[in-house]
Amino acid sequence: MAKDFTTRKQNYSEWYNELVTRADLAENASVRGCMVIKPYGYAIWETMQQTLDKMFKDTGHVNAYFPLFIPKSFLSKEAAHVEGFAKECAVVTHYRLKNSPDGKGIVVDPDAKLEEELVVRPTSETIIWNTYKNWIQSYRDLPLLINQWANVVRWEMRTRLFLRTAEFLWQEGHTAHATTDEAIEETKRMLDVYADFAENWLAVPVIKGVKTANERFAGALDTYCIEALMQDGKALQAGTSHFLGQNFAKAFDVKFTNKSGVQEYVWATSWGVSTRLMGALVMAHSDDDGLVLPPKLAPIQVVIVPIYKNDEQLEAINRFVAPIKNALQKLNIRTKYDNANNQKPGWKFSEYEFKGVPIRIAIGPRDMENNQVEIARRDTKTKNTVHVEGIEMYVSELLQQMQQSIFEKALEFRNQSTHYVDTWDDFVKTLDTKPGFVYAHWDGTPETEQKIKEETKATIRCIPLDSKPETGTCIKTGKPSMQRVVFARAY
Amino acid sequence: MAKDFTTRKQNYSEWYNELVTRADLAENASVRGCMVIKPYGYAIWETMQQTLDKMFKDTGHVNAYFPLFIPKSFLSKEAAHVEGFAKECAVVTHYRLKNSPDGKGIVVDPDAKLEEELVVRPTSETIIWNTYKNWIQSYRDLPLLINQWANVVRWEMRTRLFLRTAEFLWQEGHTAHATTDEAIEETKRMLDVYADFAENWLAVPVIKGVKTANERFAGALDTYCIEALMQDGKALQAGTSHFLGQNFAKAFDVKFTNKSGVQEYVWATSWGVSTRLMGALVMAHSDDDGLVLPPKLAPIQVVIVPIYKNDEQLEAINRFVAPIKNALQKLNIRTKYDNANNQKPGWKFSEYEFKGVPIRIAIGPRDMENNQVEIARRDTKTKNTVHVEGIEMYVSELLQQMQQSIFEKALEFRNQSTHYVDTWDDFVKTLDTKPGFVYAHWDGTPETEQKIKEETKATIRCIPLDSKPETGTCIKTGKPSMQRVVFARAY
Repeated sequence: MAKDFTTRKQNYSEWYNELVTRADLAENASVRGCMVIKPYGYAIWETMQQTLDKMFKDTGHVNAYFPLFIPKSFLSKEAAHVEGFAKECAVVTHYRLKNSPDGKGIVVDPDAKLEEELVVRPTSETIIWNTYKNWIQSYRDLPLLINQWANVVRWEMRTRLFLRTAEFLWQEGHTAHATTDEAIEETKRMLDVYADFAENWLAVPVIKGVKTANERFAGALDTYCIEALMQDGKALQAGTSHFLGQNFAKAFDVKFTNKSGVQEYVWATSWGVSTRLMGALVMAHSDDDGLVLPPKLAPIQVVIVPIYKNDEQLEAINRFVAPIKNALQKLNIRTKYDNANNQKPGWKFSEYEFKGVPIRIAIGPRDMENNQVEIARRDTKTKNTVHVEGIEMYVSELLQQMQQSIFEKALEFRNQSTHYVDTWDDFVKTLDTKPGFVYAHWDGTPETEQKIKEETKATIRCIPLDSKPETGTCIKTGKPSMQRVVFARAY
Repeated sequence: MAKDFTTRKQNYSEWYNELVTRADLAENASVRGCMVIKPYGYAIWETMQQTLDKMFKDTGHVNAYFPLFIPKSFLSKEAAHVEGFAKECAVVTHYRLKNSPDGKGIVVDPDAKLEEELVVRPTSETIIWNTYKNWIQSYRDLPLLINQWANVVRWEMRTRLFLRTAEFLWQEGHTAHATTDEAIEETKRMLDVYADFAENWLAVPVIKGVKTANERFAGALDTYCIEALMQDGKALQAGTSHFLGQNFAKAFDVKFTNKSGVQEYVWATSWGVSTRLMGALVMAHSDDDGLVLPPKLAPIQVVIVPIYKNDEQLEAINRFVAPIKNALQKLNIRTKYDNANNQKPGWKFSEYEFKGVPIRIAIGPRDMENNQVEIARRDTKTKNTVHVEGIEMYVSELLQQMQQSIFEKALEFRNQSTHYVDTWDDFVKTLDTKPGFVYAHWDGTPETEQKIKEETKATIRCIPLDSKPETGTCIKTGKPSMQRVVFARAY
């Protein structure tokens, strides 16, 4: 167990905060609610970005960039959108500072007041659909499949590193289509991309589903989502894909001439994932010794640590390591040889363990004699002595195995933490004693959903896409229900 | 010549604006001074980003992310910085909107006023050095070599797409060092990276130099720059690298313990290039028929256009093209086969010409018979008939040749537009009749520089790094001078 490090059992929330800062992922900035993403954390985010970006391009999307600022009046053009979104925003009211008349520091220049205030984008539907109006005239201009990588700001009152910050980084896809079917297909396609990424890169199993009306994105007709389970049994929404119908097209008057020459409103989708995924990654796999990173996302996949008593031994190990490192890098394995002499091997072991480096290779004089090395897995803490011959293939296969095994461990945890209940008493007891996903019947009304939330703090995470019709009665009202939905307490 | 398209001679400025919007690079946003970077323009920017990012990483840098917002008080901590930078900024004063009491739209909630106003970053030295304070204790923490890709905002009054916009995208490197020598070395290293990128990717020759005190970055001891020449004879600053001395370390109290155990202030650099490079790219090479893109940055490097009279012919061409396209893509040549049947070949020819696609391959029935294709170069407008056998190698070599030839053309233009003058009359006349770089003697005082600027609108672009000492007399004051500096009117 890492020194002075809170365990998950002691205080899960504290464990998370300490882990994120001590593993050099991120820290709180001097600006309220904002974070600094540190190089080690940012390196993980970069891999996420590159991977997702390729997946978006492979599904026909291109990138573009829209302004940071949105005129205040835009936000109120789509009625549901303004209700849900417009409120907790950073507002720019002035465009100039000046020297303070008292000679101390600077003040806002009262003469430089904007005619219309600008809102720092909390999401970009409004500014983008205002732009699409000029880009779309004919069915030939459709579909328009655009993604943006950007920062957004939502003035959250209670913030937590990665999970909920005033400013965060994300991507937002905004597509325009000629038909409702195409738009729905796109919405689902991007949900599948997110699920694929979550499971095969983050190694986090997710439930694909659709949100209830209460939990829907402001302005959407349907919000699809992927829901993940964290180790404390709380759910985390890891990505959303919205079918927006014609709401934004109508609000911004975006019409196209169809093949028959008739003017129609355009159909829209939007979809996004954010630096919140970093929080999911940390919470899903890490342990009381620090980070556990799935190999595909680890900035350093293999660290090699020399064990030596004097310079002569070190030099011999350096020579021994060179071809090993070379062979690993030829297979595109991100490898670091740490032969810095200002720290002892023990310190290095726990440092790289804390940072979640998947594989550690230790090499001492005796290993060299036997032409072997010691290989330690971060996830299971198991060690193996391995012959140097063909080590790069061994490591490469081990990394793939670990990626799979980290996913399976999370999946097993989720299976163990998934419960089916049929009565209110069971529901409440399960939430309190066996946190996780609870599949239960619900009468389908927002009122019942709201009541359940108020009494238990559990929300409907989604109506799962893969669930089979099943008759039953609502756990709260006893009214008939045709399908179970997934409840959980959530981040 | 493209239809209804202003020529460079008619109106260079108008030509540029039309080109940027009609070639789908960018357009003015509905927010004053901001731009929308359209997918085609953004694809070029992405290649620039990826290339620079690799160059930064190859020189030991890592990426991180710092907050968008800077507390107002931070900006006044470094005296010179506040003078030069703090004024024309977007200022966030409130964090909430609410429904308007009259029921129409939304208003800023007066109860949600920030205690301290936040400035949208115009550059991040202050927030970053405030963070570095906690990251640097010992010489072991140095050097700290960090880069950030971000959006920044400067409330410019006169804006032009890419060249000067209220919001723009850029990268900013911020490094911390134990010694002044190391910091200066870093400043120059990054200048070299920028020059390498400008010449070998943008195909734009640049002068490397150092700015005079008047033109220095606010807070720097020295500002190094690369200066490029546009086709209208005006200079454009394409990148800067600043040696900041200990100014920001002192302002934010960033000290380290050196090897002797003594506390010292840290030495700093910062360096950046922005979407302004897009403007340089367009202005340096394009012509009256549209964009000319150096192949390395072209989103589409080769377009293949079929010439056919009926479906049967088109199908035959499709089959003929498939292996050619495949062979090109195997060499990582970005290839598009445009067999859309809603536009005629002539329309496609001028469309891809306007968008600066370097190579166009046209294929008709007779070409197929002869097993050949017609290859047209965008830059020189020359055409060649080429046998299909080994065409991928031909194209690959041609792309390399074109990259080189576009650079050489720009270099020749710069050489022709570079003048050495020794008298005031010659200086004024040259600026008016033969715009370009003017190498002249200057007495080294800010006063003379300012006078020259007021009388001629020419500024000292830089004191070139490669110039040889040469005695002479200042063109304005006749005082002695030891070196020529480079004057020009500039963007």
